[in-house]
Amino acid sequence: MKKFKLYLTSKQISSQIDGKLIEFHQNDLTNVAELNEADEHSVCFYENPKYIDDLKNSKAGLIFVPEDFDPTLKMDTNLLLIEKPYIHFMMLVQKWLEMSTSEIIEKISRSASIPKSANIGKNVIVRSNVVLGENVIIEEKSRIESNCVIQDNVQIGSNCHVYPNTTIYEDCIIKNNVIIHAGCVIGADGFGYVFDQGIHHKVPQVGNVIIEDNVEIGANSTIDRATIGSTVIGKGSKIDNLVQVGHNCKIGENSILCAQVGLAGSTEIGNIVYLAGQVGVAGHLKINDGAMIGAQSGISGDVPQNAKYLGYPAIDAGLQKRIFAVQRKLPEIVRFFNKKIKEEKQKENS
Amino acid sequence: MKKFKLYLTSKQISSQIDGKLIEFHQNDLTNVAELNEADEHSVCFYENPKYIDDLKNSKAGLIFVPEDFDPTLKMDTNLLLIEKPYIHFMMLVQKWLEMSTSEIIEKISRSASIPKSANIGKNVIVRSNVVLGENVIIEEKSRIESNCVIQDNVQIGSNCHVYPNTTIYEDCIIKNNVIIHAGCVIGADGFGYVFDQGIHHKVPQVGNVIIEDNVEIGANSTIDRATIGSTVIGKGSKIDNLVQVGHNCKIGENSILCAQVGLAGSTEIGNIVYLAGQVGVAGHLKINDGAMIGAQSGISGDVPQNAKYLGYPAIDAGLQKRIFAVQRKLPEIVRFFNKKIKEEKQKENS
Amino acid sequence: MKKFKLYLTSKQISSQIDGKLIEFHQNDLTNVAELNEADEHSVCFYENPKYIDDLKNSKAGLIFVPEDFDPTLKMDTNLLLIEKPYIHFMMLVQKWLEMSTSEIIEKISRSASIPKSANIGKNVIVRSNVVLGENVIIEEKSRIESNCVIQDNVQIGSNCHVYPNTTIYEDCIIKNNVIIHAGCVIGADGFGYVFDQGIHHKVPQVGNVIIEDNVEIGANSTIDRATIGSTVIGKGSKIDNLVQVGHNCKIGENSILCAQVGLAGSTEIGNIVYLAGQVGVAGHLKINDGAMIGAQSGISGDVPQNAKYLGYPAIDAGLQKRIFAVQRKLPEIVRFFNKKIKEEKQKENS
Repeated sequence: MKKFKLYLTSKQISSQIDGKLIEFHQNDLTNVAELNEADEHSVCFYENPKYIDDLKNSKAGLIFVPEDFDPTLKMDTNLLLIEKPYIHFMMLVQKWLEMSTSEIIEKISRSASIPKSANIGKNVIVRSNVVLGENVIIEEKSRIESNCVIQDNVQIGSNCHVYPNTTIYEDCIIKNNVIIHAGCVIGADGFGYVFDQGIHHKVPQVGNVIIEDNVEIGANSTIDRATIGSTVIGKGSKIDNLVQVGHNCKIGENSILCAQVGLAGSTEIGNIVYLAGQVGVAGHLKINDGAMIGAQSGISGDVPQNAKYLGYPAIDAGLQKRIFAVQRKLPEIVRFFNKKIKEEKQKENS
Repeated sequence: MKKFKLYLTSKQISSQIDGKLIEFHQNDLTNVAELNEADEHSVCFYENPKYIDDLKNSKAGLIFVPEDFDPTLKMDTNLLLIEKPYIHFMMLVQKWLEMSTSEIIEKISRSASIPKSANIGKNVIVRSNVVLGENVIIEEKSRIESNCVIQDNVQIGSNCHVYPNTTIYEDCIIKNNVIIHAGCVIGADGFGYVFDQGIHHKVPQVGNVIIEDNVEIGANSTIDRATIGSTVIGKGSKIDNLVQVGHNCKIGENSILCAQVGLAGSTEIGNIVYLAGQVGVAGHLKINDGAMIGAQSGISGDVPQNAKYLGYPAIDAGLQKRIFAVQRKLPEIVRFFNKKIKEEKQKENS
Repeated sequence: MKKFKLYLTSKQISSQIDGKLIEFHQNDLTNVAELNEADEHSVCFYENPKYIDDLKNSKAGLIFVPEDFDPTLKMDTNLLLIEKPYIHFMMLVQKWLEMSTSEIIEKISRSASIPKSANIGKNVIVRSNVVLGENVIIEEKSRIESNCVIQDNVQIGSNCHVYPNTTIYEDCIIKNNVIIHAGCVIGADGFGYVFDQGIHHKVPQVGNVIIEDNVEIGANSTIDRATIGSTVIGKGSKIDNLVQVGHNCKIGENSILCAQVGLAGSTEIGNIVYLAGQVGVAGHLKINDGAMIGAQSGISGDVPQNAKYLGYPAIDAGLQKRIFAVQRKLPEIVRFFNKKIKEEKQKENS
């Protein structure tokens, strides 16, 4: 249950949205909730018939329901009949959040460490104990949460939100409207060594990371800097928690990397690619536009455009599913095979 | 080797424990150690015959050994004969730790940032550079280590221990006796987008995380907040390092998630479930009470109560092990199969 | 592109390196870059013919090329002909970095929290908001970046570099020339419980972590402390990002653990072992010297010296690759097998 400082009425909500309000009583709505935790001040949504019991038992004050919903099923509750209950409910949540955001009075915390060489735009928020290196640029309306460390020469565009305890190494460039969740490490050294005479000699890592507009990066993910040049996360791509992106990778636009995905160095991911959870991709490969890779797959070669791959090593998902389906037959097949081999030998010997 | 500020004698130790002391000499014991690193002031245990040589060579001052141990094997060392040496040794370690804990004089660090709206209980410890948001509640005897960030409206119960550099996002609820190790991120946004016209539109994430009593969460793990409602970690469950729990997951009581496990969104884990290392679980599934899942397994469907599953995709562990056992026969089988196909074709053609 | 504060000329660079300079014009060089992002002040290298177009179009001021390179291919640019362009280029980068390092004036930040009991060597750098526990030792020339937390009794040798937001738990020992990247957690509790009467009872974790000379650990990795004794990372071993090393593991010298590898408790890794990305290793195993394990493999038994293993569960890599190659035949084999079974049954019945 998310409570807002600002309350709304069912009428106020329905006046903003192109749906049909069935109002049994006037009420003050103060929160959004799931059906089964709702109280009389809650707004909820109902779409999936699986949750019909939750709907019937819900104490919610207003429920978004589908257009073809039978209102007699929930006679005592204000209902908003609407084409896509979930989408419109979420749009309401977004608006309500924006209306409720309180002004932060201290924009730059006195405990933040900000050298004179920093260039901080208008309405930037820098919270407690943030440490900026030399020549850092942060453009307007960006927000750096407490205990982040932003090293020398980092550039952060406008409207970014960097959550607490994140580290951004020197020279990295974050463009506009980027969200970086807590604990991320952007720009740590790529994993590069030259093995000579039994010892791994570190290769200096002097490239950077460039994160384009509208990217979101989940908690505790790590994006390594390039050895030379840049590791790039393209416009609108979304990265989940605990993801590893190796040095010199290039991720295209609007791609999705789910939690715990790992990319080895110098791999290219196209546009609108989908990598499900825990997928691993070897180095120096190319996954082309529109490809979809199933969870935990291991990618050891290039993936063609719009291909669906699955498995370890990953192959065409359709074939892989057929293989998965028949694998449980293997013990039986091997028994049959052993019997046949024995028969053949007996024939040869007789 | 763990050295304690408080020293004990073999007699003092044995007087607390229901075992039989064979004392060759009086001594001051100041530390616990492994057999092979021990000095004359060390207490050790011996249980597994694999380590008999370490026992014989050990310089330990006191060794917990099994009741049926032959003392002539270690004539010069004080021995404590006892039913379960390891368990009783660990109980001693626990007690010794508690006796040795020194008082912390500064309970609330002056460098911590604590707004007036915070509600801090008795004997709470808040260390250096901790940043609390508005309306945070921390109940008695809890301890927040240095450089943690606890955002608005977070509630932390009594006797909790939050290690350094942890971030807890707004509205999350941590109950009593919870341990959260360093670098964890509790309550970051769930990974939710609506894909429309080639762009991923962020779904607002306004639920929270609820962590019940006696949970322990390992270093750098991430527990995402629910979209609406709560992500819940049930009473007594234990989560290892680098684990990802997606938004709206519900984990039951006394379950175990080993390192690097990943749960996609809205998945339910029952009570006393065991997920070994690097297991991945798809979204919207149910793993029922008592199920045990082998390491690196990929769960793509519900798992019945008390089932043992293994593999990718995971199936009954017994069948999976039989499949693993015969898989190495595959190249031979395929040769046999190709030969047969060829023979059949020749027959048809002749 | 990495810009240095100090500029060099082509002559100055070539005078340091045993190659042959072909100089078309004198120039000031200020940065190192990839061929395709270079400007007239850039030094680049060219080695792989795949990048010949980048070479031809490059605006670089000086390019390291192989000894047998035909200079007429790039008439307008200063060239340095040399045996191993990449290696020598990287050696230049390393030297240039060292020459360009500016003196840090404030060696110990006033916002760092350093108790009187700390023992800090000469030329140690401790940046903003670092929190040291009691009795911490940091030897000369080591550098602790902002917002790190180093708990009681930790020892850090000379020439170490600990990046921001890292946590080192009490009693851990870091030797010399160790690099620990941002967000690491060294010495968190091992994952140990005793299950009794339906509840997991925590086993106290009182060992430590020892990190030997010349180790590098990637961002957000976690190395758990031993239950008793020590978790050890041997001399010269290199660990990538998001790696989990369980309690009581012993890693030998000069081994490589790629990103997202996980080791369960008490496992031993020998010298010059290579674990590719996302490999998982069960507990209490031994991977012997020189073994190489392919990406995402699951190790469930000991691995012999110099063995190459691959797969889930991992077996000899050669055999595994043959199995992978024939797996796609499985659906066809199963059809053949079902046909044969049917034929045999018909024979029996007729």
